[in-house]
Amino acid sequence: MKVYLNGDYHDHDKAAVSVADRGFVFGDGVYEVTRVVDGRFFGEQGHLNRLREGLQGLKINMPEEEIEKIPQISRDLLKKNGHTKGEATVYLQVTRGAAFPRTHQFPDPPVKPTLFLSTGPFTAHKDLHESGVDAITVPDVRWSRCNLKTVNLLPNTLAKEQAHAAGVNSAVMIRDGVITESPNANIFCVKDGTLFTYPASNYILNGITRRTVIQIAMDAAIPLIEEPVRMDDLFELDELFFSGTTTDIQPVTEIDGRPIGSGKPGAVVRKIQEGYRELLYNG
Amino acid sequence: MKVYLNGDYHDHDKAAVSVADRGFVFGDGVYEVTRVVDGRFFGEQGHLNRLREGLQGLKINMPEEEIEKIPQISRDLLKKNGHTKGEATVYLQVTRGAAFPRTHQFPDPPVKPTLFLSTGPFTAHKDLHESGVDAITVPDVRWSRCNLKTVNLLPNTLAKEQAHAAGVNSAVMIRDGVITESPNANIFCVKDGTLFTYPASNYILNGITRRTVIQIAMDAAIPLIEEPVRMDDLFELDELFFSGTTTDIQPVTEIDGRPIGSGKPGAVVRKIQEGYRELLYNG
Repeated sequence: MKVYLNGDYHDHDKAAVSVADRGFVFGDGVYEVTRVVDGRFFGEQGHLNRLREGLQGLKINMPEEEIEKIPQISRDLLKKNGHTKGEATVYLQVTRGAAFPRTHQFPDPPVKPTLFLSTGPFTAHKDLHESGVDAITVPDVRWSRCNLKTVNLLPNTLAKEQAHAAGVNSAVMIRDGVITESPNANIFCVKDGTLFTYPASNYILNGITRRTVIQIAMDAAIPLIEEPVRMDDLFELDELFFSGTTTDIQPVTEIDGRPIGSGKPGAVVRKIQEGYRELLYNG
Repeated sequence: MKVYLNGDYHDHDKAAVSVADRGFVFGDGVYEVTRVVDGRFFGEQGHLNRLREGLQGLKINMPEEEIEKIPQISRDLLKKNGHTKGEATVYLQVTRGAAFPRTHQFPDPPVKPTLFLSTGPFTAHKDLHESGVDAITVPDVRWSRCNLKTVNLLPNTLAKEQAHAAGVNSAVMIRDGVITESPNANIFCVKDGTLFTYPASNYILNGITRRTVIQIAMDAAIPLIEEPVRMDDLFELDELFFSGTTTDIQPVTEIDGRPIGSGKPGAVVRKIQEGYRELLYNG
């Protein structure tokens, strides 16, 4: 498998960044994961715009002309790796670059940002989309700039690992008594036919798939309220589902060993799944 | 300058880690910085014990025999770099290692952790210890596992950069209305001869220097209470100072443009500085 790093293509197991890269010593960078179906990108502009927002949020100075090269690099890499047929993902990461010696404050003058891309074959979790999955609740211990898609991902990896160790698929994170996100997906709740989701703010990542779900709900005239759902109301819900780039639309049927609603994927998630599949595969 | 990486010594500008290193893609690692004076380590066991706690906190499986090699590697590296005379620092980082493809949950079976060390010459900021420094208050946006010394350091670097952009030395971070830490140091406050500092908990890093200050205060019979100080009481304080491995004991005489106490370093910080210098340079 080839990867792209700072202007060159390398074998994935040979590509390496400096130990002084601020990605390595500070997690000082942002990333995006984009779905590709038969070479066709899903939500590409949304991902690139969020990348721009992230770079701005971290004050990483990557010239716009460098950002504009990313679509071509992505396509070249997919081709080199034979990922232009069927499903694939493109992973993209930008860090502030390498600066020695290490100092908390940004290198002055700024250094050249590190740009890394990889692609991989992808298999949608269609069986889980059909069956639904289980999850545990965990405290949302993340920082309060969750709107930035940075590689400071320890709380997410720890929560995902905690779920894995508990023998369940994923986790539902709780902050101040309300449901925020899963470690790698947004969360939608359904009560009496209305969708509820945590408002786009500094406490969640405003997912590209999340925005697509909101659009699908609007088009299908499903009422949607951007309001937090209380942990205390979790088991009064009719449905709950995850949305994310590699998660797709994922019903969650059991949390902490107790059923959500009927304990089976409900009518609303089925409707959203249908709309989402249409956009992803036939859009 | 030489650095150590996974068993070998390299020129610092040649040493590189895989793009699949979880340090690079998740900030999935911990670090320590240790002061060295004429080849003598300060608080070495404290740093190694905190490293062990951090590895345990992140469930990174580094065998004890690997950890026990670190003191020798540190000394070899200091020697190679000619840092055994005068002042120096040893930087040490362990990440969960490289795993491809990228997944949030930990590699199973675990991969070999990455061990990286560098050394640098160090100059204590004696002028600033004498004069005191200025700072701004910033919101403490960190996650709620601040007791772990991880490389998820974006909130710290952003706060430090914000201070730099404001033309001041550092920042005083405020969470829920109380003073927690600076981006790279603990904070002590003085009121009517008593020291106050945020209690060791998940909201601060329990600094090696912090522990030393507490010991010095005890030995000098200076009353010390581990309790948070409210932001609202900031300008009623007599003194405020930072403590940290590279910060030493640093009076803060002005915050947000207003003087702390008399606006000059006070008697308590001078007493602590004296005790600290004694331990660091003649201990």
